[in-house]
Amino acid sequence: MHIPVIRNVLEANEKMADAVRKRLLERGILALNLISSPGAGKTSLLERTLRDLTGKFRMAVIEGDLQTSNDAERVAATGAQAVQINTEGGCHLNSAMISRALDELSLDDLDILFIENVGNLVCPVEFDCGEDAKIALLSVAEGDDKPEKYPLLFNLAKVMILNKIDLLPHVDFDLARARAFASKLNGNLEIFELSCRDGQGLEQWYRWLGQAREAKKHG
Amino acid sequence: MHIPVIRNVLEANEKMADAVRKRLLERGILALNLISSPGAGKTSLLERTLRDLTGKFRMAVIEGDLQTSNDAERVAATGAQAVQINTEGGCHLNSAMISRALDELSLDDLDILFIENVGNLVCPVEFDCGEDAKIALLSVAEGDDKPEKYPLLFNLAKVMILNKIDLLPHVDFDLARARAFASKLNGNLEIFELSCRDGQGLEQWYRWLGQAREAKKHG
Repeated sequence: MHIPVIRNVLEANEKMADAVRKRLLERGILALNLISSPGAGKTSLLERTLRDLTGKFRMAVIEGDLQTSNDAERVAATGAQAVQINTEGGCHLNSAMISRALDELSLDDLDILFIENVGNLVCPVEFDCGEDAKIALLSVAEGDDKPEKYPLLFNLAKVMILNKIDLLPHVDFDLARARAFASKLNGNLEIFELSCRDGQGLEQWYRWLGQAREAKKHG
Repeated sequence: MHIPVIRNVLEANEKMADAVRKRLLERGILALNLISSPGAGKTSLLERTLRDLTGKFRMAVIEGDLQTSNDAERVAATGAQAVQINTEGGCHLNSAMISRALDELSLDDLDILFIENVGNLVCPVEFDCGEDAKIALLSVAEGDDKPEKYPLLFNLAKVMILNKIDLLPHVDFDLARARAFASKLNGNLEIFELSCRDGQGLEQWYRWLGQAREAKKHG
């Protein structure tokens, strides 16, 4: 009885994800689904990106958390549009939640939509939210073995961000090892090393964002 | 249709967890379920604990991971008994997995059983594995807001370990804030601050382990 129910849930999610994708495509909005462990730095990356690219792109964030609206408040403080989804214990966002959140946003004034998923390296990976790309974040404080131990995310993501590289002198993290595992899972993975604390490496991420937005707009 | 199925899954899990608990109680084995985000340092804490307390307690570890047997190999290198469970994509351990793993262990030669759950702050919390206590780990690199954002674990755990405190000079983590949130959720929570890298704070954790084992033995 268990397995068919799960399959129906995933099928229903994919159908709704396609509807979300269509709605965003009509307006040329690039949608990115940020997935990581709790505390890898998704919200900090968004705060920094929203501030640095204000005036260049019109951006919005859908925040997913079990509880609280802390993260939506943090990103809204940058001036971006923000919607908070509380899953009330749920371990991932799904496309029905995103569809409802889109109703709260002014889509005609938008170039890029960031979806910050619930902090979890496992469950969010299976639920398509209608995004153009999944962005995997990995903090160097978490260990270089994570791509090997949680392979599905790194297999499906278009980008892996190795975050908090300012901590490299203080932790045992082998950048080459993490890169090698991730690239073995996914030969097309783009990998950026950066620090939201001191700003190093952000320009490569911003360049990728600009190119992805251009491609979506024209295509 | 969805909700009743989940309820049955949880009920079946609890029934099996009670059987696991009975089996461990008969032998006075203390069972601890370690839960945290990926990369918070569960395996490193176990490696250190197993090495430092060799000769004092007879210990075993059941390792839960989506893939690989890296963690079981790491803890087995200390001389402890170790069993690896691969969930093949599953986001948590359950009591049926633990029951099967117990068959692989020599239970008559055991004082303490550590269960290292899949790295995930959400899903493992709801699945009783027959343990005496859940041990929550939080690395200071993850941010002091995690007890507020993932409250169920900190509400149900008996111990919260604030790990990697050697990184405190390099991250924005307010120990008092993390402690205050967690204690608000759970007035009886024991909190230990430690670093497996430089060894500070471990003695408090070892003292708690010894007391918990004594209490279980005398029952």
